[in-house]
Amino acid sequence: MAQEQPDNVRLSGDGSSVVILDQTLLPGETKYIELRAARELHEAIASLRVRGAPAIGIFAAFALYVLAQQTTAEDYEGFRTEIIKQSAYLASARPTAVNLPKQLRRMEKVIEGSAGTPIPLMLDALRHEAEQIQREDIDMCLAISEHGLTLLKNGFGVMTHCNAGPLATSLYGTGLGPILLARERGMHLNVFCCETRPLLQGARLTAYELSRAGVDCTLICDNMASFVMKEGKIDAVFVGCDRLARNGDAANKIGTSGAAVLAKHYGVPFYVCCPSSTIDPDSMTGADIEIEYRPSEEIKELYFERPVAPANVKCYNPAFDVTDSALITAIITEKSICKPPYETSLSQHF
Amino acid sequence: MAQEQPDNVRLSGDGSSVVILDQTLLPGETKYIELRAARELHEAIASLRVRGAPAIGIFAAFALYVLAQQTTAEDYEGFRTEIIKQSAYLASARPTAVNLPKQLRRMEKVIEGSAGTPIPLMLDALRHEAEQIQREDIDMCLAISEHGLTLLKNGFGVMTHCNAGPLATSLYGTGLGPILLARERGMHLNVFCCETRPLLQGARLTAYELSRAGVDCTLICDNMASFVMKEGKIDAVFVGCDRLARNGDAANKIGTSGAAVLAKHYGVPFYVCCPSSTIDPDSMTGADIEIEYRPSEEIKELYFERPVAPANVKCYNPAFDVTDSALITAIITEKSICKPPYETSLSQHF
Repeated sequence: MAQEQPDNVRLSGDGSSVVILDQTLLPGETKYIELRAARELHEAIASLRVRGAPAIGIFAAFALYVLAQQTTAEDYEGFRTEIIKQSAYLASARPTAVNLPKQLRRMEKVIEGSAGTPIPLMLDALRHEAEQIQREDIDMCLAISEHGLTLLKNGFGVMTHCNAGPLATSLYGTGLGPILLARERGMHLNVFCCETRPLLQGARLTAYELSRAGVDCTLICDNMASFVMKEGKIDAVFVGCDRLARNGDAANKIGTSGAAVLAKHYGVPFYVCCPSSTIDPDSMTGADIEIEYRPSEEIKELYFERPVAPANVKCYNPAFDVTDSALITAIITEKSICKPPYETSLSQHF
Repeated sequence: MAQEQPDNVRLSGDGSSVVILDQTLLPGETKYIELRAARELHEAIASLRVRGAPAIGIFAAFALYVLAQQTTAEDYEGFRTEIIKQSAYLASARPTAVNLPKQLRRMEKVIEGSAGTPIPLMLDALRHEAEQIQREDIDMCLAISEHGLTLLKNGFGVMTHCNAGPLATSLYGTGLGPILLARERGMHLNVFCCETRPLLQGARLTAYELSRAGVDCTLICDNMASFVMKEGKIDAVFVGCDRLARNGDAANKIGTSGAAVLAKHYGVPFYVCCPSSTIDPDSMTGADIEIEYRPSEEIKELYFERPVAPANVKCYNPAFDVTDSALITAIITEKSICKPPYETSLSQHF
């Protein structure tokens, strides 16, 4: 059944450490680790023990609070200097994730507005801010899930791609949010999750999250999506989004645009779920979104182990793709269900 | 450059054994093995050291000739009895492949028509028949390749799925035939091969065959096909076919139908290459074609090694799918390039 509290990132009972579910061990092992030292907090982000942009931001906020308690500073200036240094160190763990510096900056602002406040009170304020960051993420995911739930019916077959669940956020998630909320409300869905090559987030993480929540879940290879849609097994597709252009073009994990083309062909509604903060006002269309290319080894050496392709063969490994807004039935944010034309429906979010 | 002779299946210099390229070791190791005993010939088929329906048929014909030379029979009846027994034994190695019993039956017929012929002369006739079977396959693949080549232009980007090359046939192959012939004629193509989950025939075999032939080849995950088509990198898709219905619906490796939907969406021609013997007169449409379902472990345990999904998660693993004829630009056989409506254009092949 549904979780009450996030278990991917939380404070320990006495608040002196951050406890995370080590995602590098999933799905084989469900292991919680307790992190206290600056170096191990940094390593947890860098080596993807905690992953998913929102989850990383929440983790960093808690981590900064944990490090602040270890201060030897005796006055405000010393404390502030130390916090800013630790914040920069944490931010350096994964320089490309947007939420990481964003939430750390928010934590720094707590201190900046408190010159002269005694250190114990500043620690309380930092803890409160970190908890607030997590609470806001929970509320946002829940709002997205409630909106998305109105698009589901009992018995629906639902397909999802990559991982946009609680592991990457707090409770519920974005793309998985409506599915997990449906389960909580007693609805039965048949969920097909695409394994999501090359790094298999669908197989390793989404299948794990859905199984754990008691959702009826079937794993397929990405290239089986056409088959299950043709069989009539899919009534709706739900995915997350990494960056949304003003016109509704949606950048998400590689393979999302292909799933959208198939959905259009087979007459299946295709829904993109994301917080309104995902909308990039600087991207007019998907053409403005830069795509990350990743190493060939991710394809050639499955899950970084045994080689499965000739050593000398070229690989092309875009990590994301852009789904044309014309292929998207609706975009679901915490505020509303936006329908085309997206230039208009998304504009309320600015 | 192009091969002169098939190297996946051939007779040894003195004709006393079959030499094959062990496909289970590809792409890591290019190793030829020499097989003589009935048990090892049988095992080579069963364990996929030789694979691809046409290649298995050719191998079985050579294998039966090799076994015939080991006879202790002194008269026609004894010889005939022994050959039929060995033929049945070889046929049992993979009961579902059509070409295996078909070509073994053809070998048996050589003996049946030769009552009273001295054994040495019958051996000559068997060798001649096996070589003829391979020669016919070469001619058929070359004819398909010549037809397909007329659809290619220098500088084209071509996408292919699964493996329909020389390893699965003799020289050239079917889906890869036009590409390999183009290379031989000095044409430059940029070929994208989809890795083809779950068993990775595209990564392991097609990338190997194209690299070996000097074709400019790039490996992608199946879910990247939409991305490369959207980028305008693909001018044509070429695939093989396992069974073709009278109306042109084409059963092929899982993922083929998805590639065809994407090709249609992005305006890329989609070509199916197969010998006319692939047409199943008993299948009016694709709905009459039975799809093989394979074990979950192929998905959950990548390449049969480390588990990558929760142990208890359900998997759905169809090995083939059917591509609607409406998505196919042309079907290329050894006889001609067939255009829609396929009911008419394919009927000349019956």
